[in-house]
Amino acid sequence: MNDLQNFSADNRLSFASDYMEGAYPCILERLQQTNLLKTAGYGLDSFSESARSKIRECCAAPDADIFFLIGGTQTNAVIIDAFLRPWQGVIAPVSGHIAVHEAGAVEFGGHKVLALPQTDGKLSCEIIASCLSAWQEDENRNHMVMPGLVYLSQPTEFGTLYSRKELEHISRVCHDFGIPLYVDGARLAYALACPENDVTLPALAEFCDAFYIGGTKCGALFGEAVVIPKHNTLPHFFTIMKQHGALLAKGRIAGIQFDTLFSDGLYSKIGRIAIDSASRIRAALLEKGYCLAFPSPTNQLFPLLENRQAERLSEKVDMSFWERVDENHVIMRLATSWATRDDDVSHLISLL
Amino acid sequence: MNDLQNFSADNRLSFASDYMEGAYPCILERLQQTNLLKTAGYGLDSFSESARSKIRECCAAPDADIFFLIGGTQTNAVIIDAFLRPWQGVIAPVSGHIAVHEAGAVEFGGHKVLALPQTDGKLSCEIIASCLSAWQEDENRNHMVMPGLVYLSQPTEFGTLYSRKELEHISRVCHDFGIPLYVDGARLAYALACPENDVTLPALAEFCDAFYIGGTKCGALFGEAVVIPKHNTLPHFFTIMKQHGALLAKGRIAGIQFDTLFSDGLYSKIGRIAIDSASRIRAALLEKGYCLAFPSPTNQLFPLLENRQAERLSEKVDMSFWERVDENHVIMRLATSWATRDDDVSHLISLL
Amino acid sequence: MNDLQNFSADNRLSFASDYMEGAYPCILERLQQTNLLKTAGYGLDSFSESARSKIRECCAAPDADIFFLIGGTQTNAVIIDAFLRPWQGVIAPVSGHIAVHEAGAVEFGGHKVLALPQTDGKLSCEIIASCLSAWQEDENRNHMVMPGLVYLSQPTEFGTLYSRKELEHISRVCHDFGIPLYVDGARLAYALACPENDVTLPALAEFCDAFYIGGTKCGALFGEAVVIPKHNTLPHFFTIMKQHGALLAKGRIAGIQFDTLFSDGLYSKIGRIAIDSASRIRAALLEKGYCLAFPSPTNQLFPLLENRQAERLSEKVDMSFWERVDENHVIMRLATSWATRDDDVSHLISLL
Amino acid sequence: MNDLQNFSADNRLSFASDYMEGAYPCILERLQQTNLLKTAGYGLDSFSESARSKIRECCAAPDADIFFLIGGTQTNAVIIDAFLRPWQGVIAPVSGHIAVHEAGAVEFGGHKVLALPQTDGKLSCEIIASCLSAWQEDENRNHMVMPGLVYLSQPTEFGTLYSRKELEHISRVCHDFGIPLYVDGARLAYALACPENDVTLPALAEFCDAFYIGGTKCGALFGEAVVIPKHNTLPHFFTIMKQHGALLAKGRIAGIQFDTLFSDGLYSKIGRIAIDSASRIRAALLEKGYCLAFPSPTNQLFPLLENRQAERLSEKVDMSFWERVDENHVIMRLATSWATRDDDVSHLISLL
Repeated sequence: MNDLQNFSADNRLSFASDYMEGAYPCILERLQQTNLLKTAGYGLDSFSESARSKIRECCAAPDADIFFLIGGTQTNAVIIDAFLRPWQGVIAPVSGHIAVHEAGAVEFGGHKVLALPQTDGKLSCEIIASCLSAWQEDENRNHMVMPGLVYLSQPTEFGTLYSRKELEHISRVCHDFGIPLYVDGARLAYALACPENDVTLPALAEFCDAFYIGGTKCGALFGEAVVIPKHNTLPHFFTIMKQHGALLAKGRIAGIQFDTLFSDGLYSKIGRIAIDSASRIRAALLEKGYCLAFPSPTNQLFPLLENRQAERLSEKVDMSFWERVDENHVIMRLATSWATRDDDVSHLISLL
Repeated sequence: MNDLQNFSADNRLSFASDYMEGAYPCILERLQQTNLLKTAGYGLDSFSESARSKIRECCAAPDADIFFLIGGTQTNAVIIDAFLRPWQGVIAPVSGHIAVHEAGAVEFGGHKVLALPQTDGKLSCEIIASCLSAWQEDENRNHMVMPGLVYLSQPTEFGTLYSRKELEHISRVCHDFGIPLYVDGARLAYALACPENDVTLPALAEFCDAFYIGGTKCGALFGEAVVIPKHNTLPHFFTIMKQHGALLAKGRIAGIQFDTLFSDGLYSKIGRIAIDSASRIRAALLEKGYCLAFPSPTNQLFPLLENRQAERLSEKVDMSFWERVDENHVIMRLATSWATRDDDVSHLISLL
Repeated sequence: MNDLQNFSADNRLSFASDYMEGAYPCILERLQQTNLLKTAGYGLDSFSESARSKIRECCAAPDADIFFLIGGTQTNAVIIDAFLRPWQGVIAPVSGHIAVHEAGAVEFGGHKVLALPQTDGKLSCEIIASCLSAWQEDENRNHMVMPGLVYLSQPTEFGTLYSRKELEHISRVCHDFGIPLYVDGARLAYALACPENDVTLPALAEFCDAFYIGGTKCGALFGEAVVIPKHNTLPHFFTIMKQHGALLAKGRIAGIQFDTLFSDGLYSKIGRIAIDSASRIRAALLEKGYCLAFPSPTNQLFPLLENRQAERLSEKVDMSFWERVDENHVIMRLATSWATRDDDVSHLISLL
Repeated sequence: MNDLQNFSADNRLSFASDYMEGAYPCILERLQQTNLLKTAGYGLDSFSESARSKIRECCAAPDADIFFLIGGTQTNAVIIDAFLRPWQGVIAPVSGHIAVHEAGAVEFGGHKVLALPQTDGKLSCEIIASCLSAWQEDENRNHMVMPGLVYLSQPTEFGTLYSRKELEHISRVCHDFGIPLYVDGARLAYALACPENDVTLPALAEFCDAFYIGGTKCGALFGEAVVIPKHNTLPHFFTIMKQHGALLAKGRIAGIQFDTLFSDGLYSKIGRIAIDSASRIRAALLEKGYCLAFPSPTNQLFPLLENRQAERLSEKVDMSFWERVDENHVIMRLATSWATRDDDVSHLISLL
């Protein structure tokens, strides 16, 4: 115990991100209980199979192909590479994670990110439709990158949500143009648990050609569960994973985690804890007159702060720097998670 | 407990591979003890830093850059991509893992595997030298892939070992030609623990430009520790990892594991357990007149079996099918690990 | 002769582009005179060497490495790939050819085009500097694509020109940040011949780390001459060309063309013919009250036309459709070249 | 004329390769006749269309898609990339051009060359079948590169030929396994003109999924005509060409050349000239007791020479060094072409 203290963070409040701890405790317990059982590798084990069954059921997608990958950038790169042909690119909001913060992983796979204007981190179905029809009508389209996939995230980079209606419209536009739709769910638990949200797992399975259920930022040590509702949409996906270095030898380590996350409503519970904390903080921020830069109803809050406010808060609270607005103002990010303690929330509120 | 039995393997003896269990138990304990501590992400945490210090010390490489990646194929692809320029390829034995069993991950990064003839899974320094000088002397070399890295593994695919002298000679050849040397240590614990082995961690750090210390197959849940003895040999490696989807958000999960593996001699102990078991089995095989296809002194044994023998053994023992030799003979693989139980070894021997 | 008429365009005036004919006639004559001489392949012949000498002299760059490639997209892809490391991207104006009309050739090589806002097709040195310093100051820069090259074109996509001063400032910014500067000169002859232009070949050699002198659109059958002023800036460029399929077996076919283009002032003359024609047309357009969408002083003119005007002109004149502005207006492109006939110019003017 | 002499090769006999001159003279004449006609770019002109019609007719492939590319390495890379999915590789003889002398262009596109043992430069249908069934039966095939295309060349690197029967068998094997077959015809004219050859253009169109008719080494300035017998086998091929930098702006320059090559039997005539010369040299070599290293009936001859012989001949004759056999022997290559003069053949024979 003593030596652990060396690793312990100091006494500051930490709302810097939602991946600062290990895993939701019962996940570790499950790993321990199963530790010495022998299983096949590469996700062919019965834990992974069990996890897949549970996810299929939650998604009301009995024929879904489900694969467990390790992290978000990897998952995005593998799926995008699996969907696209070499001459195609992926449509994404200009603020999308793949467009900015994945170190060119999509381009490493040979594909262009076709970045479109966003509002609150979201693409509208009009903007997608207009990009797709502009390409179709362009006389020079054969000299251009063909849009081959639409990438969204739920929640977005700014914590905002697509409504069921919005997703349905985007899905219809995509399918009218013969383009698949893919949703990045790195923080999906926090969308699903949000009272404002009406996009359920079955809705995602209905409207998307693929999406992933985030584990890394939602209670797992690591891991993302790719759901491909229609069987064999992406043939040879296993080999594509291998080629991308995304295939776990001990696939069960991911399988056990998702089997646990989808037992006894854990994934929902994890989302709820974070959302409850975020809601308390949001209410306090608004009550005290802070502005929020984006209308995020999920676990990330983006207060617009005067420099002095930001400095004062930073003395006691770890936040993420988001963006400098002007000489006197910055946007900071506060994130909650399944591991956020009520006391810390109260303490934070007292400091606002 | 009850539901675990559903996942439990049946009553067969299992020597199919060395990654069928979870992690060496104290690794899970350590993950549990540290679970709720908050740390920075992406390997910038103090657990990872501690692990790096311990590895540097064990390697007698105080300036080494150390990075934690997730699996072997990924690690190979990232390192090879970081070393090579676009017009270069990597020399490897024709039996090398990157040449056969990584689904073209090296080629996905744009590089050719220059596969050279092997003996017992090993490249000789003569063969390497002759490939390098052939390229240098070829009038058409500007139309050919330039060798830009030598890839070996210790132990090899066939469980065999390079001696210190062999490695030193290869290293000298490489450096004479200005080509870096990289060693894949997916099963390095089992080499280090082997009485026949004289290639220590400091020797690897002395002779290689990069190598990795395998975790996945040597007691960790997952994870490989890349050691780059000379600081800044591979600038921007962090970003290259990110671009390859090889950067863990919760980098500490790998860091904690390696910190544990390199505390209290655990990595050595893990190797020893497997080697002791393998030695018992090898002695029994030889005593009973079995032929071994490769002179592996490590944790993988490759008995050459008549079909009938193979069938009989397979009724009770999980082995890996390795290769069909002729109509009547096959090579099978038996692998031990840190998790191999003495009773199972005895039971196996009784069945031979 | 008779059968040629089948291939002949009809009687319409054609100002659709600057690559509708073969080559400036004396280039074909030179190919014929030299046709049966035997030479080494791959650009190692004496014609290519002679062309290189002449270009070095014109550029006042005695140590320049010079390579002949086939077309613009290919040249851009090869140079960009040669300059960039895998984790880097290339800065370009959002309207740049590599950003829009090269079918993702840069991304095929694994690199992101970092598209920045343009004015009249140009990047300002402020915008470049702000992008470079934003990257440097971003805490997350290790998760992002690193800018590794600046791409401009002279003239730009909109026919506009950088001044010597602008180019010098951009060059200084690039070098302050340690980033090379590359200029695409697909239509360079038309810039060089333009009275408004003060960026000479020696200025390009002084300010750029690489640029290319366009042949395809400036009088050759095909071919672009890459100039790398500082010897060995891009080692192994020959092999990179080969790997990209950009190495001509009969390299002399490009060499002879550039040797001719750089003899007796032909490259200048070719530019002048096009510029003189464009100037007559521009003057007529302005006199007759047409608006020009971009202030292009080179061989491309972009009249903004009412739909009716566009339709009327299109009955007799081939133009390129450039862009729909609103329901009632379009931008069309008129291009002149070395092959534009005075009579056709007069005829066009009479139709305006 | 005077200055041409500076470029002229000296007085030596040159049999070093088949691409040392410009083009068959009437090709240049045709370029000159058509030079000032205006046409659409990118291969959409009527010359290219006419060439395509003639080729379709010669191949008895009325629905064939035909594209004109610039050189062999480029053509191979583009076709292979168009056929393969990311997880697939291309089967080729270990001596194949793509396996050795294309600077890793196939790997640059992300694909492995699966190099199989050759005999006289050829793959047998047994070897292909055994590679394909080995992959199918391998339990680890999902971790391996999947064979996705078979690459041959006619003639091979060693000048040898597949018979119609051999090609038919290979084609059947390929189609039984669902793998397309592609034939590199860089020197196809010299196969077609060979008395021993029974593989006609219609046979290639019948047995292959794609092949190319070489121009660069068979009388053109440059250019290769890709024939894809079944329409739309490779959708978006135009854009793939563009992305690879393989699309000529003035596509007609290739179109006119192939239109000429396929008028009045020129392609056959070009082949015949080279084959006649080679036959005379071969007969003389055999008569004088030389050994030929490969049984090439086409325009490349590979005498096995003692060092002294090689030195003596090299004093007066340019040959290509092919391979050192042992301390005392080398293999050299003599190549003839459409441009080989009878006098030079006689002179060479007198020197043997």
